[in-house]
Amino acid sequence: MAKKLGTQTVVLDTQPVIIGSAAIVGKKEGEGPLARYFDDIIEDEYAGEKTFEAAESRFMLNAYNKALEKSGKSASDIDFILSGDLLNQCTAASYAFRDVSIPYFGLFGACSTMSESLVLASMLIDSGAASNVVCAVSSHFCSAERQFRFPLEYGSQRTPTSQWTVTGAGAVILSKEGQGPRITCVTPGKIVDEGIKDSNNMGAAMAPAAADTIMAHLKDTGRTVDEYDMILTGDLGSFGSQMLVELLKRNGIDTKDKHHDCGTMIFDLNRQDVVCGGSGCACSATVLSSYIMERFRNNQLKRILFVATGALLSPTRIKQGETIPSIAHGVCIEA
Amino acid sequence: MAKKLGTQTVVLDTQPVIIGSAAIVGKKEGEGPLARYFDDIIEDEYAGEKTFEAAESRFMLNAYNKALEKSGKSASDIDFILSGDLLNQCTAASYAFRDVSIPYFGLFGACSTMSESLVLASMLIDSGAASNVVCAVSSHFCSAERQFRFPLEYGSQRTPTSQWTVTGAGAVILSKEGQGPRITCVTPGKIVDEGIKDSNNMGAAMAPAAADTIMAHLKDTGRTVDEYDMILTGDLGSFGSQMLVELLKRNGIDTKDKHHDCGTMIFDLNRQDVVCGGSGCACSATVLSSYIMERFRNNQLKRILFVATGALLSPTRIKQGETIPSIAHGVCIEA
Repeated sequence: MAKKLGTQTVVLDTQPVIIGSAAIVGKKEGEGPLARYFDDIIEDEYAGEKTFEAAESRFMLNAYNKALEKSGKSASDIDFILSGDLLNQCTAASYAFRDVSIPYFGLFGACSTMSESLVLASMLIDSGAASNVVCAVSSHFCSAERQFRFPLEYGSQRTPTSQWTVTGAGAVILSKEGQGPRITCVTPGKIVDEGIKDSNNMGAAMAPAAADTIMAHLKDTGRTVDEYDMILTGDLGSFGSQMLVELLKRNGIDTKDKHHDCGTMIFDLNRQDVVCGGSGCACSATVLSSYIMERFRNNQLKRILFVATGALLSPTRIKQGETIPSIAHGVCIEA
Repeated sequence: MAKKLGTQTVVLDTQPVIIGSAAIVGKKEGEGPLARYFDDIIEDEYAGEKTFEAAESRFMLNAYNKALEKSGKSASDIDFILSGDLLNQCTAASYAFRDVSIPYFGLFGACSTMSESLVLASMLIDSGAASNVVCAVSSHFCSAERQFRFPLEYGSQRTPTSQWTVTGAGAVILSKEGQGPRITCVTPGKIVDEGIKDSNNMGAAMAPAAADTIMAHLKDTGRTVDEYDMILTGDLGSFGSQMLVELLKRNGIDTKDKHHDCGTMIFDLNRQDVVCGGSGCACSATVLSSYIMERFRNNQLKRILFVATGALLSPTRIKQGETIPSIAHGVCIEA
């Protein structure tokens, strides 16, 4: 049985295992510093499909198939799929999984969806209801830009705090037993809204949510930052990361060299013209599913806190003058 | 510990209890046959807010507050909120719950979100991670029409298979102990897509998903329709309901007088000009949270199978010529 620890953390009895994972990315991500860790790089932004939305489903399905293959499981072993994406009506996920015939739960946590799915999947495994759960998320630069900002054809200028939505998908197979890193506890996040209205400054909107979850996690577990090899946020980017470090410092937490952000890891910020770094559900999901898992396999990591961050942005509400609520879920992964 | 039964059903060990529920609806719903069961009827379609989207968040928050009050719990007793809606980026839920300071999971199951949240919440309670969970969903006729079809100002004609999105919100407080109907087992649904492309015929898109889940539930539990007082679907409407009954009959299941649909219950189809009936997340959620709970309290119901149905419709993908994937999750509720 899972147990509540402090006010917001849940300690997992089964310690679910990441028995397989896969990351499929697009061309630009395949030119970045983590290129050699990805399972596949699809150069065609349409991925052989007719639309960007269909392409995103293709990335998702490929990541799922690859993760399943690597886990040694077959589709009939999977109890549930937990999945989501950024598109209106989570359409990349719904269309990707309509033919797999596995009970499905659609999630929406914006770019935090990878950790949202891992948090829920861990507790479902602890409940005894599931032995193997798929967590899969995707994003696509072209489908996201036209939905949240402007169609690419407009050739819009990018602002100094903007980020670049990662094209790709990450999938993890979580199991009640097997070999691999384990999820030992989780800290589900609360919605935090500090009043940011600029949809080109998602890092600033999400940093307070990340700080809130990290502080809750450390308080609940009674641990210090030193007890982690890495505090890994999802897609704060360079600007949001600075804000997070500053916010934590003001609350008496020195992150030292432990904080890293998938958004600044997946691209070379000096060379790839992505301004503040990567974003999108696939940003943290592909980095976790590839590079981070590889570092666990090589014994370079013993314990990390993975905190994917999501800006629960609605273009409609932004046009109505509203601010951007954000959320971050914490997942403690150990060797 | 929860236990898998057959291929798709999960039997709950704690049998989580619905200790409180509330339904807040709009003017048209308040003129329908179930008017006297609702907790509140808000005549103003803006609910005192400036936009339809903000109004929908207001309905959601009011339903949450009322359900909490009726359950005798306070916000600090709640471990998690599971919530979603139809709007792009699930914005009604995100904005409703940004100030409550409770760990939050955003869900997207379209109009199936009420049963998706109950299924997940039941298993989370069975895991030991949660004692009290809020499940809350909303929809709004005005925000849904302009997003999925046309702005109301166009005065579009309605087609013979169209349905009317319910304005309102339903909230349920699910607890590991207390007085009230219990969730004894759940049957999470698979995504089913039988090729319907008409976004004005959601009943036809969703009926095969409902049939799939109902058949899986009966097969897994070894029960017949006779062992239920009611098989209650979410929002198939009159046309989709006919299809469901026909589909089940072809598979050897006679629903007799047991099948009812919240979409045909919430409005008077002869009098209220809603064509095939109600739809939207709030359709099944408000009927379940009010009328159905009342019938349990009066000992008129002993066991029902609640199957909220969702069309995972994306206007973008429909314009690209795609079909509508659908899903339905089954929740067995017993006195």
